[in-house]
Amino acid sequence: MTKVRRVERIVALTKMLMDMPGHLFSLGHFSNLFSTAKSTLSEDMVTIKQSMQEFGLGTVQTVSGASGGVKYVPYPSEERINHMLTQMAKQLSDPDRIIPGGFLYMSDILFTPELMMQAGEIFRARFSSVTPDYVMTVETKGIPLAFSTARAFGLPLVIVRQGSKVTEGPSVSINYVTGSTKRIQTMSLPRRALPSGSKVLVIDDFMKAGGTAQGMIDLANEVGAQVVGTGVLIATIEPEKKLIEDYLALLMLHDVGQHTKMIDIRPVL
Amino acid sequence: MTKVRRVERIVALTKMLMDMPGHLFSLGHFSNLFSTAKSTLSEDMVTIKQSMQEFGLGTVQTVSGASGGVKYVPYPSEERINHMLTQMAKQLSDPDRIIPGGFLYMSDILFTPELMMQAGEIFRARFSSVTPDYVMTVETKGIPLAFSTARAFGLPLVIVRQGSKVTEGPSVSINYVTGSTKRIQTMSLPRRALPSGSKVLVIDDFMKAGGTAQGMIDLANEVGAQVVGTGVLIATIEPEKKLIEDYLALLMLHDVGQHTKMIDIRPVL
Repeated sequence: MTKVRRVERIVALTKMLMDMPGHLFSLGHFSNLFSTAKSTLSEDMVTIKQSMQEFGLGTVQTVSGASGGVKYVPYPSEERINHMLTQMAKQLSDPDRIIPGGFLYMSDILFTPELMMQAGEIFRARFSSVTPDYVMTVETKGIPLAFSTARAFGLPLVIVRQGSKVTEGPSVSINYVTGSTKRIQTMSLPRRALPSGSKVLVIDDFMKAGGTAQGMIDLANEVGAQVVGTGVLIATIEPEKKLIEDYLALLMLHDVGQHTKMIDIRPVL
Repeated sequence: MTKVRRVERIVALTKMLMDMPGHLFSLGHFSNLFSTAKSTLSEDMVTIKQSMQEFGLGTVQTVSGASGGVKYVPYPSEERINHMLTQMAKQLSDPDRIIPGGFLYMSDILFTPELMMQAGEIFRARFSSVTPDYVMTVETKGIPLAFSTARAFGLPLVIVRQGSKVTEGPSVSINYVTGSTKRIQTMSLPRRALPSGSKVLVIDDFMKAGGTAQGMIDLANEVGAQVVGTGVLIATIEPEKKLIEDYLALLMLHDVGQHTKMIDIRPVL
């Protein structure tokens, strides 16, 4: 490929890095692609990194050594996180969302790509101290959120199925008790989906008593994997004592007033 | 915000545009954000567009008029599409994927974010002549693919539930007959998820006889919506005559040889 102007090369580099968060690119790869010296590409990376950080969009990490390279890490600033979560809480406070039974309709938000991509980047920032190998969720409504989180980490997603209808070869199942309704349920996973020894980040859309999250932790343990973090988009303030203690929620649901038509949901800042 | 160097501004613009494909940004918005004249930003957009197109990464469209602006449209070149689909077919041809019963294990690929993001961009390019309002899929395995497609279009996703266990307010259900096993099943959707009059793009991971896709078309019609296209990642070559005629597959599965241990899967180029 013929040489291109620096600014055009930087646009292409930004797009390629951002398309694969967490993926380590060698400078040699870009050097071939753009017919440009590695030293020049290093300067490009400094520029991209400075701009990302200045606008609170993320960062570019350099890994040194023979097998080194550069990778893009989404890292929204606290200012941007505050703004995104405040907006989401506002959208979720619309009284039209109240469903008979005191539930909150939130599928539209859970299935809006740009909102879930933002939430995924927020989890990436909040869980920056853990180094999972997989992101895990249980079907169905949390899948886009967990997928976006996996994408922000550059990791594969594992989806646990409800029931035992897995037809993907040998599987492992566990029974669990939903914390709120006290029903016994089954969840399962194909054996080959999660190798023994893996570190897992559990992501779900909603947590009340924590029974489902505890089920995923048990299922991971059953195959010899270890849960290193649990994140939910929304947790309810009641019951205060949940089945799992160590979880991170982005929003706390304080009250859904069926009669008052008031929803009290607040960002965790 | 103080003025920044042009190249840093262009990095930030590229990231912001790419974070929200299909979203129309006014130049006024960027003008405030960067304290830069609109005419300068117009030049930046030309640079970004040229670079995207030169590297087969997408394009930037300008919408003129008072409510106009710019938007990023993912549009991988045919060369990149060929490369991506050929790689995916190769990965799927691994004989270890054969599951007793002649099925193909593909969850790992369906749940790998960077592969599904690529597939979503391919659907965006292949369906560039239709203008849907929603992307629709049915749970579970096609959700990451449909989510990525919705993201590439900048549209919301609608997820149809199997069975009638929807607890999200009034819902509409239909019965459908799976084309391959001839069983009667139910699928449902909350009424408020899909407004009457909407145009829908149906996306699923796998099609054999087309019963599930036909079910989604019936369900869309039931709420007064119209399906304007159907895309699947993989379709089987048999049965040649499927329940729906008008669909687009990215890969065709010719054979899963349980005894020969050979998988014949080919990109549709």
